[in-house]
Amino acid sequence: MASKLVVECVFCKIIRGEIPSVKLFETATTFAFLDIGPLSEGHALVVPKFHAEKMHQLPDEFLADSMPVAKKIATALGADNYNVLQNNGRLAHQEVPHVHFHVIPKPSTDKGLIIEWPAQNADVEKLKDLAKSLKF
Amino acid sequence: MASKLVVECVFCKIIRGEIPSVKLFETATTFAFLDIGPLSEGHALVVPKFHAEKMHQLPDEFLADSMPVAKKIATALGADNYNVLQNNGRLAHQEVPHVHFHVIPKPSTDKGLIIEWPAQNADVEKLKDLAKSLKF
Repeated sequence: MASKLVVECVFCKIIRGEIPSVKLFETATTFAFLDIGPLSEGHALVVPKFHAEKMHQLPDEFLADSMPVAKKIATALGADNYNVLQNNGRLAHQEVPHVHFHVIPKPSTDKGLIIEWPAQNADVEKLKDLAKSLKF
Repeated sequence: MASKLVVECVFCKIIRGEIPSVKLFETATTFAFLDIGPLSEGHALVVPKFHAEKMHQLPDEFLADSMPVAKKIATALGADNYNVLQNNGRLAHQEVPHVHFHVIPKPSTDKGLIIEWPAQNADVEKLKDLAKSLKF
């Protein structure tokens, strides 16, 4: 029996065809459609057919297809410049709590995704300590 | 024989171990390390072991691994909020011309990736026309 989350999730409804979308195509594990609130013409969403809120909660078999599908879309759009973006959590700009990858053409500086890049210079020794502390 | 592009590419050199990096781990097709100009602590790069400038130029077998690897990093970092970003072309903020996926923790509004989201309301009929015009 489907959980309440899956029943009420907007993207699960789109995947099941219960909410209309402008579909691009689908595979066994992924559904792709055009964003109705686009940042630029051709802004598409690549959505795994598995309900998980955040990317790290998805089984690998539902992740393996996501970038090949994004590639198909970028190729079909013929975009020279574009961003692929996947947001996790409200603080990180996630709007719908079902994993989705944005493919966003960047035709000009004022259209598409606008990014600020407040890079810091890292202390390499601290990076090494961090890397050692991580368990993979 | 390796092309000049591959010989001179900074990320190809990192993958081959000719330039040092703070490696996280690698698979047969992917190399992951910490960004030395991080937007937040734990900012990592997931780099396919194939020289291509843009994502849509990569063979699928080098794309399939990228999100499972990004997932491992997000899990190891234990980030609640994070962005996965892949930039194609200078206009879209690509700095190194070898495909790479950023995994960027978003611990607070002023740290990590800062995004502007100038969404438009799309005309659904125009979206349908666009979708019909695309060849997959």
